[in-house]
Amino acid sequence: MTGKLIGVGLGPGDPDLMTLKAARAIGTASVIAYPALPGTESFARRIAADLIAPGVHEIVIEVPMTKHREPAQAAYDLGAERIAEALDTGQDVAVLCEGDPFFYGSFMYLFARLADRYDCDVIPGITSVSAASAALGQPLVARNDTLAVLAGPMDSDELAKRIEAAQAVAILKVGRHAGRIRDVLTALGLVDQARYIERATLAEQRILPLADAPDPAPYFSMILVAKGSDPWL
Amino acid sequence: MTGKLIGVGLGPGDPDLMTLKAARAIGTASVIAYPALPGTESFARRIAADLIAPGVHEIVIEVPMTKHREPAQAAYDLGAERIAEALDTGQDVAVLCEGDPFFYGSFMYLFARLADRYDCDVIPGITSVSAASAALGQPLVARNDTLAVLAGPMDSDELAKRIEAAQAVAILKVGRHAGRIRDVLTALGLVDQARYIERATLAEQRILPLADAPDPAPYFSMILVAKGSDPWL
Repeated sequence: MTGKLIGVGLGPGDPDLMTLKAARAIGTASVIAYPALPGTESFARRIAADLIAPGVHEIVIEVPMTKHREPAQAAYDLGAERIAEALDTGQDVAVLCEGDPFFYGSFMYLFARLADRYDCDVIPGITSVSAASAALGQPLVARNDTLAVLAGPMDSDELAKRIEAAQAVAILKVGRHAGRIRDVLTALGLVDQARYIERATLAEQRILPLADAPDPAPYFSMILVAKGSDPWL
Repeated sequence: MTGKLIGVGLGPGDPDLMTLKAARAIGTASVIAYPALPGTESFARRIAADLIAPGVHEIVIEVPMTKHREPAQAAYDLGAERIAEALDTGQDVAVLCEGDPFFYGSFMYLFARLADRYDCDVIPGITSVSAASAALGQPLVARNDTLAVLAGPMDSDELAKRIEAAQAVAILKVGRHAGRIRDVLTALGLVDQARYIERATLAEQRILPLADAPDPAPYFSMILVAKGSDPWL
């Protein structure tokens, strides 16, 4: 009997926003795995730290952040091999994943390498989008409205078209595209309805009107746009 | 001192998918409020049932499901009044909300009526979209891909345009539009990549290839489309 691969969604950062199921999966795991930037503390491990039992076997997957994908792919290849070794001994492996594993989550890189060979379970997590709208105290999407989740690197014309077509917009991975995205929203007359959120639910959380957002912004930042006034009344 | 209004996201249905923060908010509340269809058990209360302490004051908001919005608006007006009475005595009120309060959540109707007068806190929840992709065991959105969240009543041409433009699509509130949505996806050559999910994470959960989905479908059903093969590798 091989073990089970468990993708554990940790939510946006506040450990209190883990689900009961995730907390139990971490607390009872004998093997955990998580990604880390080389030489730095893993953000995923930091979220889960208080729940990890002493003596647990920890598989650290050091993923370099590079322009080319090959070094990251090689890191996930190696991580998947080490996880497979643990699964082959019959132990379950809980893979810690920020946010939701299947919503831009790093877990997908391991899932793609292992799910055809091993039993797999995914525990969904609170997304950064839900966390950000709660932190803003601003309803995101209601009734029959449309939400577009976009990524910062998208071309400006395409971005403008999609922002116009949706009632609510979440732009993730803002990073070095912050200024350009602000220009797009300004041209659309929407800059006052857009808010900038950095590291939602963490102690370092920052919320700013988009006009005051840093450029470049950190990678883990987001812009939310809610159009239409009180459509839920 | 008036009390605090707390919108508590309960997640998709499995009580284990509540967050630690939500569970604590419910367990320590002296007043809870929740919507119910007249004459039926509240789905929100059912999710939270094991955590509700005996003797808690419960405000039931009976919301009729009608074509016109006025009866529902009147129900939320009345519910907001009763919640305000409790807040005015200095008690916090935890409002139970399926899924995520700001993601198509009923809580927004109360928030719109009370947030300008009372302190308010929102605890985000696992969305039905995250729950469904976990239940399917199918990654939803990766890298710089785009996710479109759409509602079933959308016009077919518009639906087709948006499905084509996104890498991942979640169509909520499928209900009586199931057959028409299937036709749209068939015309786009995407019917085999689309999955139908009903009541994700509950004992009654059903997952079907879209071709076998019921028409009409229940209101709480969803269609997920993931295009592109292994874009995360």
